[in-house]
Amino acid sequence: MYSLADMPTTPAEVRKIVGDGEWHRHTSGLCPGYTQANLAILPLEAAFEFLVFCQRNPRPCPVLDVTEPGSPHPRLLAPSADVRTDLPLYRIYRRGELQAEVDDITPYWRDDLVAFLLGCSLTFDWALLNAGVPLRHREEDKITAVYVTNIPCTPAGRFHGPLVVSMRPMSPTHAIRATQITSRYPSNHGAPVHIGDPAAIGITDLSRVDYGDAVSVKPGELPVFWACGVTPQAVALESKPELMITHAPGCMFISDVRDAELSVL
Amino acid sequence: MYSLADMPTTPAEVRKIVGDGEWHRHTSGLCPGYTQANLAILPLEAAFEFLVFCQRNPRPCPVLDVTEPGSPHPRLLAPSADVRTDLPLYRIYRRGELQAEVDDITPYWRDDLVAFLLGCSLTFDWALLNAGVPLRHREEDKITAVYVTNIPCTPAGRFHGPLVVSMRPMSPTHAIRATQITSRYPSNHGAPVHIGDPAAIGITDLSRVDYGDAVSVKPGELPVFWACGVTPQAVALESKPELMITHAPGCMFISDVRDAELSVL
Repeated sequence: MYSLADMPTTPAEVRKIVGDGEWHRHTSGLCPGYTQANLAILPLEAAFEFLVFCQRNPRPCPVLDVTEPGSPHPRLLAPSADVRTDLPLYRIYRRGELQAEVDDITPYWRDDLVAFLLGCSLTFDWALLNAGVPLRHREEDKITAVYVTNIPCTPAGRFHGPLVVSMRPMSPTHAIRATQITSRYPSNHGAPVHIGDPAAIGITDLSRVDYGDAVSVKPGELPVFWACGVTPQAVALESKPELMITHAPGCMFISDVRDAELSVL
Repeated sequence: MYSLADMPTTPAEVRKIVGDGEWHRHTSGLCPGYTQANLAILPLEAAFEFLVFCQRNPRPCPVLDVTEPGSPHPRLLAPSADVRTDLPLYRIYRRGELQAEVDDITPYWRDDLVAFLLGCSLTFDWALLNAGVPLRHREEDKITAVYVTNIPCTPAGRFHGPLVVSMRPMSPTHAIRATQITSRYPSNHGAPVHIGDPAAIGITDLSRVDYGDAVSVKPGELPVFWACGVTPQAVALESKPELMITHAPGCMFISDVRDAELSVL
């Protein structure tokens, strides 16, 4: 098995190692500068409604690629990749219930499956660090703090549910700079959706996360909230689709596209 | 009948006048500052493939709203509007052939129709004029010059075809400023796709437009090319859908959303 230090830095090489079953851990830190993506696979029967849900809620659900029904190849993000093998770990859900965690979904693949690849905040975490904006969860060696808000997403067909957000505590100066920087990445959640009072968006206690790890908020800091890629997964699972396959937490798809290629300015 | 000077400036009032059949002309100049949109209506059977086509080609096909199947109300852009009556003039296509031009599509409406509202360059034309970038087609009282390029769109299912572009001649200084300004509006075609030599994108003669009007290019000016909303319409018609309904040229949907609300920075 490989360690992070042994890993190559190009996406195709890393996907090969992952596809060969030699890397089962999370993908944070792999291929710096290349866009990583959330994965959600649904039957074609649900795909139009899900894509409309994403279109109506672009902050939590920025769509980077949609495969042709039955094709495991994401033509925009990495035409040579295979979403059935190239992620370290997957989750199989049947009617909304977690059924299995596997490192290869080839046995589950069907001609009517459509894979959605959605933007991920790893992209702007890199952009923030590059711009000298410190990230508390990195300092504390944790994963991002994630909360369910009282803000409803715009529904589409069977899909509806609350907006899920990630939170990063920042000084006011860094909150302003972070707003500028993340605005450049609408394909990866874009600008914050809220700054300041957590109660205003239905979060009563920052120490009680719904996903991820709680991080410390220091005196004088503002909590800054971004729409989170957990939203589409949580919303899709709520609708209890007959089959849904996702990446396991932190085990993202590594694309051939550089973060800088997806920025608007 | 109303003249432009008599027309109110709020979208709901203008849509009422249009819906009452008292305005059949193009919508340029109506409701300055409010986003106008291209309309494409397709049967649900083709809607997923068309939406994937738009997702894969966001420059020519920026999706602003998708209605629920059978609903004529665009909930994101103007929940009180009705796409069956609120545009001045529509075109009905059967199997890719223009069948009729009508001012009310209620008789053609069906439970399986889905309306797509797509961003339009009227938005950034306003932004350019506001920033002091002159527009030749306005100076010459024409509509924009539009060309079919040799750049293929990324196909999706039955939908494929070349990118269509609009062209605005500009001084190098204005071309740079226009690139900055239009980059802020990815929902309305965003930054240019090409600057300079028309032959590089398959346009042999700027005086021979494929749509719209040719405009003069002065010495020292560069032609600047943006992806154009004619693209999705042309591509959809090429696939000869059983039924497709669009706005008539220049007779756009006027939304409740301000252009400034759709800018990313």
